[in-house]
Amino acid sequence: MSAVHEYIDRHDARFAEELFDFLRIPSISARSEHRGDMQRAAAWFADRMRDAGLVAEIHETPGHPIVTGEWRAAAEHAPTVLIYGHYDVQPVEPLDLWNYPPFEPTLSQGRIYARGAVDDKGQLYLHIKALEAHLRTHGRLPVNVIVLAEGEEEVGSTNLMPFVQKHRDRLRASAIVISDSTMMAPNVPTIGASLRGLAYFEIRVRGPATDLHSGSYGGAVINPATALSRIIASFHDSSWHVAIPGFYDDVRVDPDFLEQIRQLPFNEGEFLAETGAQRLAGETGFNTHERLWVRPTCEVNGLLSGYTGEGSKTVLPAHAMAKVSCRLVPDQDPEKIQRLFVSHVKRVAPEGVHVEVEIMHGGRPWRANLEGPLYEAASRALLKAFGQSAVYAGEGGSIPIVPEFERVLSAPVLLMGFGLPGENAHAPNEWMSMECYRKGTHAAAALLEELRPATP
Amino acid sequence: MSAVHEYIDRHDARFAEELFDFLRIPSISARSEHRGDMQRAAAWFADRMRDAGLVAEIHETPGHPIVTGEWRAAAEHAPTVLIYGHYDVQPVEPLDLWNYPPFEPTLSQGRIYARGAVDDKGQLYLHIKALEAHLRTHGRLPVNVIVLAEGEEEVGSTNLMPFVQKHRDRLRASAIVISDSTMMAPNVPTIGASLRGLAYFEIRVRGPATDLHSGSYGGAVINPATALSRIIASFHDSSWHVAIPGFYDDVRVDPDFLEQIRQLPFNEGEFLAETGAQRLAGETGFNTHERLWVRPTCEVNGLLSGYTGEGSKTVLPAHAMAKVSCRLVPDQDPEKIQRLFVSHVKRVAPEGVHVEVEIMHGGRPWRANLEGPLYEAASRALLKAFGQSAVYAGEGGSIPIVPEFERVLSAPVLLMGFGLPGENAHAPNEWMSMECYRKGTHAAAALLEELRPATP
Repeated sequence: MSAVHEYIDRHDARFAEELFDFLRIPSISARSEHRGDMQRAAAWFADRMRDAGLVAEIHETPGHPIVTGEWRAAAEHAPTVLIYGHYDVQPVEPLDLWNYPPFEPTLSQGRIYARGAVDDKGQLYLHIKALEAHLRTHGRLPVNVIVLAEGEEEVGSTNLMPFVQKHRDRLRASAIVISDSTMMAPNVPTIGASLRGLAYFEIRVRGPATDLHSGSYGGAVINPATALSRIIASFHDSSWHVAIPGFYDDVRVDPDFLEQIRQLPFNEGEFLAETGAQRLAGETGFNTHERLWVRPTCEVNGLLSGYTGEGSKTVLPAHAMAKVSCRLVPDQDPEKIQRLFVSHVKRVAPEGVHVEVEIMHGGRPWRANLEGPLYEAASRALLKAFGQSAVYAGEGGSIPIVPEFERVLSAPVLLMGFGLPGENAHAPNEWMSMECYRKGTHAAAALLEELRPATP
Repeated sequence: MSAVHEYIDRHDARFAEELFDFLRIPSISARSEHRGDMQRAAAWFADRMRDAGLVAEIHETPGHPIVTGEWRAAAEHAPTVLIYGHYDVQPVEPLDLWNYPPFEPTLSQGRIYARGAVDDKGQLYLHIKALEAHLRTHGRLPVNVIVLAEGEEEVGSTNLMPFVQKHRDRLRASAIVISDSTMMAPNVPTIGASLRGLAYFEIRVRGPATDLHSGSYGGAVINPATALSRIIASFHDSSWHVAIPGFYDDVRVDPDFLEQIRQLPFNEGEFLAETGAQRLAGETGFNTHERLWVRPTCEVNGLLSGYTGEGSKTVLPAHAMAKVSCRLVPDQDPEKIQRLFVSHVKRVAPEGVHVEVEIMHGGRPWRANLEGPLYEAASRALLKAFGQSAVYAGEGGSIPIVPEFERVLSAPVLLMGFGLPGENAHAPNEWMSMECYRKGTHAAAALLEELRPATP
C-alpha cells in the first residue's frame, strides 16, 4: 500500500471526527432562519481546505456562498480536475421520525446518522481528506485540483451557473468529479451513467376569501381542496402513465443503456423492504430500474389545505396547496415540461376557483458518455479501493448542474458516489456507511493517481 | 312595553359584559389541552344560571360536562320548554387571519368579534338573560323551563343523547327551543325549517415506511398523496354531482319546501361577496338555496401530506391524510352513507397503498313540521321583538341533536336563530351582531310569554 493510502488508514478516526463537526452545522438552504448556519458551514469548509493545503476562497452570491479550493502546482501537462459538491442539506421534518437528533451525528452499527451525512457533506469531505493525504505525504498532488462547493444544491443551484459562467476560465478542467450518488449495493463500486432532470412546481388554489362553515356554504362554492385533488388526479392515467399532453414527446429510448441496466443485479425484495411500501408498483410495462432511471415521473411532494389538526372541523377551506415535481429523462427539456405542466393545470382546473402555478426550479436530465480516459481511470481507482470492479448504474435523482457543467466547461463529468441503498437522503434518519466514507477516501485519492499523466 | 322588556333594555350593557366573560374562556372541545377550560366554562355557565334564579347542575360525562338549569314553579297546566345550546366552540386556526384575538372579545361597528360569539355562546346566553328578566321582574316564569347546555356539539355530541335517554323523564317538555342558526338578513327574523345531516371521515393513506427521496424512489412505488387525490377526485362527476354509488338513493324531494324556499329573498351578489369566492358554483341544475338546503354534499375539510413548508423538498411522502364530510338531507341515513362512503373509498383506492377510513361522527338531517302552537307562538314573539314577520328558511349546517331530540323526547323543535349572514362561524373573525343579541333576548323573553297557557 502506498504512503498516501497508509496515511488515510492512519487518520481514519480524525477524518470521521472532522466530518461530525461539519454535520453539526444545520446548513438547511431552504430555510431563511438558517442563513447564519450557511455562512458558518461555508467558513468551516474553507478553513478545512486551507488546513489540507489548498488556497480557499468564499464567494458571496445573492443566495448562499460558493466556496472554492485550489492547488495548481502539478507537473507540466498534468490535467486539472474539478471536484464539485454541496454543503447545504435538506430540511429535517418530520422531526419526530428521527431516531437521533439530525444535527448531532451518531455512529451506530457502522453508520453515521445525520442530516447531510451522505447528501452531500460526507461525500464532499472525503475528497478533501484524499487531497490532504496526498499533500501531507508527498507535498504535492498528481494533478491540478479545483474544489467547488455550493450551498444551494437542495434549492435549485440558482447562483451556481452564473458563477461558473463568470469564472469559466478559472474553472477550466479536463474532468469534473462528483460524489453525490449511491452504490448499487455494499461493496459494489458504482459509476453513475445517468441522472433524471427535474421540474418543480407549487400549485396554489384559492376559493373563498377565508375558511367557511362547510354546512352554511358547502355546495354553493367550489371547494379548493377538491379542485386541487382533481387537478392532481389528472396527472396520470389508470396505468400510471403521465397524462399531461406532450409529456413523453421528447423521451429518447437508448437500447444500449436499457441492455446495460437489465444486466445489473437487482434484489426486488431488498429494494421493497428499503421503501417499506406494500409493494413495488408504477407505470405499466416497465420494471423497477426502468421506472427509476429511464422513465419520467410526476410526483406530489406535499399537500396542504384546511384543518389538519386533531379531531374534526367542518370548514370549507379558503385555499389548497400542492408541491409537485416531475423527474425528467433525456431528451426532455425542463422549460418545455414547465410550459406543458402549467398549461395542463390551467386547462383541467375547475371553474370557480383561482389557480396559480409557481415554477420553482428545474434541471436537465443527463446520460454519460462512458468512453475515454476519465472513466478508465475511475474504474481502476474504484477497483483499487474496493477490490471489486465498478458497475454502471442509472440514478433516479437529479443533479441539475451535471449537464450544465459539461455544456459550459466542455469537460466530461464522472459520478463516483459512495452512498448506499436505504441511506434515507431527503428523509428522516439519513446515514452514510463509515466503510464507504473510508473506501471513498481511498478511491478519491486513487483517482488522482490514475489521472496523473504517464511520465514521458 | 312590558316590565320584562324594559328590564332587558335597562341591563343591556351588563348583558354584553357577561357574554364577553363567557367568550374569554377558550372552550375548544376538539383539543385535549382545553379540557380545563371546558370545565371552567361549564362552571361559569352554571353560576350565571344560578344568579338568574335557576337550579343549576353540572353533570360529568366521559367527555365534557353537560350543564342543566331548571325552574319548575309555573302555573298548573303550563307547558315545559327545554332550551338547548352548547358552550363549546370550534378551534381557531388559522390564527394569523384573525383581526382580533379570538378569546378577547372585541366590539367593533356593532359586532362582537370572538370565537363562539354566535356559535353558540351568544345565542345560548341570551336565553339566560331572558329568563333573568322574567324572574327579576315577576319573580316567576310564564312556563316551566329546562336549560340543557352541552360541551361537545362541535365534536359530535357523543355524550348528549345517552344523557337525554337516561334523564328522559326529567327532560320531558312540550317544546324544544334552539338558537344556533342564522337569520336570512339583518332584521329578517327567521325560523329554521330544515337542517342537513352530517357524516364526517378521516381518510389515511400509507405508502412507504418513511418519506423517501422522490428521485431515488419516484416511479417505483405509489405516491400516497397522488393516491389520495385520485380518491377525492372520484367523489364528484364533472357536474359536481356526488359520484359515490347509492349516495342519492334516499334523497326525498319535498315540492312544498322547494316552493317555500323559492319565494325567499336572495341577494346573490351579497352572498357571493360574503364568501369571497370567484363565483357561486356547484351541482348542475340547482340554485344556491337548493344546493345549500335540499342537496347533500361531499366536502374536503382538510388535506395534509409530505413537505408543506417554505421552498421545495423532493420527497415522496410516507402518508397522506384528508378530512372529508358529507352534508345529508332527508331521508339520507348517516350510517348508510358511512357504509357507502367507506366501501367507495376502498373500491377506488389504487393498489399498492394502504387506505384506512375512520368514521368520525354523524348526524341525521331534519325538516320541521311547521304547524302547531309552538310555531305560532314563535312567529308572534319574533314579530314583537323585531317588528317584522318571520320567514322560514333552510339551514345548510347540521345540529345532529335536533332529530334525536324529537325522537327521544317526542316534542317538536323550534330553531329560532339570531346569527347573520357572513358571521364567520367556524372561520376566523367570527362575530355576532350586538343588535341581534339584544333583539334575540327580547324574542326569547316574548316566546315564553306567548307559550303561557290562556287563562281558563
